[in-house]
Amino acid sequence: MARIVMKFGGTSVADLDRLRNVAARVQREVEAGNEVAVVVSAMSGTTNQLVGWCQGLSSLHDAREYDIVVSTGEQITAGLLAIALQTLGIEARSWAGWQIPIRTDGAHGKARIEAIEGQELIRRMGLGQVAVVTGFQGLGPDNRITTLGRGGSDTSAVALAAALGADRCDIYTDVDGVYTTDPRIVPRARKLARISYEEMLELASVGAKVLQTRSVELAMKEQVRVQVLSSFQDLPGTLVVDEDEIVEKEIVSGIAYSRDEAKLTVRGVPDRPGVAAAVFGKLAAENVNVDMIVQNISEEGMTDMTFTVGETDLPRAQAALSAVQPEIGYAELLADINVAKISVVGVGMRSHAGIASTMFKALADKGINIQVISTSEIKVSILIASEYTELAVRSLHTAYGLDAS
Amino acid sequence: MARIVMKFGGTSVADLDRLRNVAARVQREVEAGNEVAVVVSAMSGTTNQLVGWCQGLSSLHDAREYDIVVSTGEQITAGLLAIALQTLGIEARSWAGWQIPIRTDGAHGKARIEAIEGQELIRRMGLGQVAVVTGFQGLGPDNRITTLGRGGSDTSAVALAAALGADRCDIYTDVDGVYTTDPRIVPRARKLARISYEEMLELASVGAKVLQTRSVELAMKEQVRVQVLSSFQDLPGTLVVDEDEIVEKEIVSGIAYSRDEAKLTVRGVPDRPGVAAAVFGKLAAENVNVDMIVQNISEEGMTDMTFTVGETDLPRAQAALSAVQPEIGYAELLADINVAKISVVGVGMRSHAGIASTMFKALADKGINIQVISTSEIKVSILIASEYTELAVRSLHTAYGLDAS
Repeated sequence: MARIVMKFGGTSVADLDRLRNVAARVQREVEAGNEVAVVVSAMSGTTNQLVGWCQGLSSLHDAREYDIVVSTGEQITAGLLAIALQTLGIEARSWAGWQIPIRTDGAHGKARIEAIEGQELIRRMGLGQVAVVTGFQGLGPDNRITTLGRGGSDTSAVALAAALGADRCDIYTDVDGVYTTDPRIVPRARKLARISYEEMLELASVGAKVLQTRSVELAMKEQVRVQVLSSFQDLPGTLVVDEDEIVEKEIVSGIAYSRDEAKLTVRGVPDRPGVAAAVFGKLAAENVNVDMIVQNISEEGMTDMTFTVGETDLPRAQAALSAVQPEIGYAELLADINVAKISVVGVGMRSHAGIASTMFKALADKGINIQVISTSEIKVSILIASEYTELAVRSLHTAYGLDAS
Repeated sequence: MARIVMKFGGTSVADLDRLRNVAARVQREVEAGNEVAVVVSAMSGTTNQLVGWCQGLSSLHDAREYDIVVSTGEQITAGLLAIALQTLGIEARSWAGWQIPIRTDGAHGKARIEAIEGQELIRRMGLGQVAVVTGFQGLGPDNRITTLGRGGSDTSAVALAAALGADRCDIYTDVDGVYTTDPRIVPRARKLARISYEEMLELASVGAKVLQTRSVELAMKEQVRVQVLSSFQDLPGTLVVDEDEIVEKEIVSGIAYSRDEAKLTVRGVPDRPGVAAAVFGKLAAENVNVDMIVQNISEEGMTDMTFTVGETDLPRAQAALSAVQPEIGYAELLADINVAKISVVGVGMRSHAGIASTMFKALADKGINIQVISTSEIKVSILIASEYTELAVRSLHTAYGLDAS
């Protein structure tokens, strides 16, 4: 017997047939003797419609009102799934975030979970009742509904699993696990049986859209064992666990890519102390996340700075840097959105040399020019022209011996 | 300066343009110096979709889960209207029933409002903030969302008006007032400038779908002045007030009809004391409302009982009566949904004779057979085959001199 949290995303609950399918999966866990809490997303399409209505009335709408509107999507799914479970003879009840409550901070539209009062749920689960919980939302300090931001249901599930002391948090989705890379680009990509939190975090944040970044951070912090599974097929998924639980560590676990990047180059910057602080301080003040940064060697007291930002942040970044041009005195600001970031991720890198050189050689062999390089303990990322994305991913997948035989 | 409650039904908030129109109407009242609370229904079509989903999963779904699903409709409208008002520069915030709270009993799916804690709303309205309140719902003693049953938003509005001590409760809808009968059936129907609570109550309960019955009962009890108005046109509406405020009393104020009736006949019932109690006690226990009742004269110790129930209650009524067949020992249970109830209503009936005979003569002239008759102090109702509905309503409208000249 185990206590588990099962989470189903929007495509898994898109219509009544799929809800019945979800109910059948929950039934199997219940009949296996497990205590079950289920976290649900809105039926796919619903959230977009609700967001569209808010934006249709005002592009600068009150986030508190946005939250009460958008949170209805999960509320609907939770009630419907409880009904679907009951028709199978399973005792179940829905819980809105405010009923448990799942307490969050007051940042409406992108709130963070602060505490979950799980005692009543634990008590009822012990009596055989399945708790069906709305993902993506909670109750703010103002006694109003908050939402966690897009993809927040994964975070809800992991936070609930931590609060309930669950043995496992199963994330059911429209892919059947975490792959060495995107199978749409590399048909010979392999599904990973296990992956460490750290690797998953790097893969999540660089564009493998399987799990939301914050949910992985939280799972790592709270040591929640997460499993990524398909809602539609009965296949073993991928277990996201502590590095210590992974016996056979791959040097490279996966290749990720992201085309949602923009490259900015500030040319002709006076090379004096405080200039980098002025540039990046301004961007931070405007809430622009900066990712890769390189600075060229100084020539005649002038240097160039190149860095990447999320493509959606580009207009704000450009406006912010134009505003500080008089103060910094740079010559020119260049932007390029035709770039892609390719990342090679693996905890095995810690103890192996030569990972980066394998990468550079594989790309050079294909004539792909590397624009920016950045590395972390378990990751090497490069920026290339976006038209080479598929070629680069495929070449690296082969070069690191990841192709399925 | 007055304190008013404005209520907008589903067709009045059906899309973003109509929501903006509603916001403009609210703006006018605010700019006239009034303190305003707005009660909203779900966007038309939404509730039906939500109900359809619940029924698609189970015809006997848990009413508590139904409530959390269906209540989302008003939640969406409340948030959106608050946004629409804010874009006009009006301070506004949404209130879900559970946030105020609007306390109800625990009868999920058809709860009754027990208390509304209005102090915080009064305080904020006094500071110029418009309260946008979800109709149709409240918070049950189990800390779960309850709904009031279809049309419950009218009741929410009247109850809120009473709790806030409002000077007026304006019900905006897709008709521009209360007519002598349904203008779609009788083009010469006349709009009434005033109608008494009692008459409105009879008209509401027999199918003139302008106001929900319970809202009128509550208005009468709490002496809330209700105005029925069009959302779409600037026309004087109908004021629903105490009989004393109506100087020129009509003998007959209106003709109502309802096709949502089902006729049940329990044939061959042993005619002994306690049988009626067994039949109707069982129905009451199953929460089935019984309307018209007739019992035939006993023959050889056996009798027939005929009565009507709401069409949606029919399956439950049939199941309940089948369950008690062994106990009661009746011969046969017959059901007929092809029936309509036609009612003639007027406070003037109290002091005038011959109202019923005019009705019977008018119907006999058209060859319409009367199946069941029931009367109250200010109403005569009959049950006929539903195919004669329009003919009967038109004939009676003329017979009582209600046709507009």
